[in-house]
Amino acid sequence: MTWERIITPDIVDKGYYIYTIEQRDVDFTGRATHVDLTGYILRAAGDDADKNGFGVSDLNLDNCSWVLSRMCVEYFRRPVVGEQITVVTWVNEINRMMTTRNMTVTDGEGEAVAKAVTQWAVIDMDKRIALDIRQHVNYDDSLMEEPCPVEKPVRVPRLKTEPAFVKRVSYSDIDFNRHMNAMKYLEWMIDALPINCLLDREMRRMDMNFLHEARYGQQLRMAFEDGERSLFEISGEDGMPLCMAALTWSDNPAGQS
Amino acid sequence: MTWERIITPDIVDKGYYIYTIEQRDVDFTGRATHVDLTGYILRAAGDDADKNGFGVSDLNLDNCSWVLSRMCVEYFRRPVVGEQITVVTWVNEINRMMTTRNMTVTDGEGEAVAKAVTQWAVIDMDKRIALDIRQHVNYDDSLMEEPCPVEKPVRVPRLKTEPAFVKRVSYSDIDFNRHMNAMKYLEWMIDALPINCLLDREMRRMDMNFLHEARYGQQLRMAFEDGERSLFEISGEDGMPLCMAALTWSDNPAGQS
Repeated sequence: MTWERIITPDIVDKGYYIYTIEQRDVDFTGRATHVDLTGYILRAAGDDADKNGFGVSDLNLDNCSWVLSRMCVEYFRRPVVGEQITVVTWVNEINRMMTTRNMTVTDGEGEAVAKAVTQWAVIDMDKRIALDIRQHVNYDDSLMEEPCPVEKPVRVPRLKTEPAFVKRVSYSDIDFNRHMNAMKYLEWMIDALPINCLLDREMRRMDMNFLHEARYGQQLRMAFEDGERSLFEISGEDGMPLCMAALTWSDNPAGQS
Repeated sequence: MTWERIITPDIVDKGYYIYTIEQRDVDFTGRATHVDLTGYILRAAGDDADKNGFGVSDLNLDNCSWVLSRMCVEYFRRPVVGEQITVVTWVNEINRMMTTRNMTVTDGEGEAVAKAVTQWAVIDMDKRIALDIRQHVNYDDSLMEEPCPVEKPVRVPRLKTEPAFVKRVSYSDIDFNRHMNAMKYLEWMIDALPINCLLDREMRRMDMNFLHEARYGQQLRMAFEDGERSLFEISGEDGMPLCMAALTWSDNPAGQS
């Protein structure tokens, strides 16, 4: 363990969170799923916002909440059960409608596991409309002049293919915001892929755009175009797009995790 | 915190495991889901078997593995985020085909959260057939003369109703045994219920029988009969029953968690 090298004063300024990969986080190959690894990235966002006084529970007091608007993650390695990961996170942008929070994930050797850029909005809990973030969050002590660690989330184009999958938003899909959780979209997309797509290649980057909320009981449709990038469009029954995503793959060379 | 009272020498003999309820374990009401709470109960089974030298990774060396055969849980209270739970577990029965492991779950005040009885078989990893447990597990130091904390799992009768739900076993459903995880069955059952069933009443007991494995890609069907007990039958396309369950409810009086 070389924590001395990882936890520099610079990182302490940024906020860092250490998590351990559990049995429930890994797939049948023994490595953390992209859903669970990304879950820890989002958990660090929540933990850091809580620490700085503008977490979900703080915003709830003001009848508003954080919602994820766009995110991207570049994955370098999927850790195994028992491995500790360190998520370093910092906020570097804010404007009226959106704020940008970044994460780097390293393993016990300080090697890169993942890097992420997330963009968030604040919504009114009842009216479900976006609010001026600066009126609800005091970022004065948190904003850092440090660039994003990877290219920001791209805008994913709408698909021309017909929806091939349907799903009803269920109890286990919804989170504290009472809408479908971001990671449940990703889980549905990955589950839609033939298993060979997951064994013969490795996801290197994921871009997601969240356009509208999916609420409990809603019927969703998912269209899918495969290729070097797998493109997904999840929409409501009226065709309104709710979530767009692009998953980028590389071949999975022997011995590569 | 009154850990002094909880961790008696008797409990240390039995093996106890302390877990903390995380954000991802709770539903939109802020309380641990039955799936995640039961997940901790099963995790304690795994942790205790590992500690005693007959965990899944030990059995895998012998090309066999544990599979859950029957389980029941009585639920008293669903804890909230940040609460610590203590799972005490002991094995009190073994025969050629089945062993019985018990659990009691208490909160930080020592109050009952849940009690469970689980029954396990050992299977050959390749042939997927049951083996004589006593030839693969050394229980000499682990067997305790201490009764089950609640009535053992009941045999759930087959249903007369037609299947109303279908589902393909996906990547996110399968676990280290490469079959559908027990808690994924429970999640599917609970998701099939109207949300009012979950808000107006509280699950007090769950009995599950696992008859055959569901493998990746398999098409499953679920039949359902509601009442004081909700009965579920999950079967393959050929009608062979794979999992039967009975969920028993009570009204959810105001203020009761």
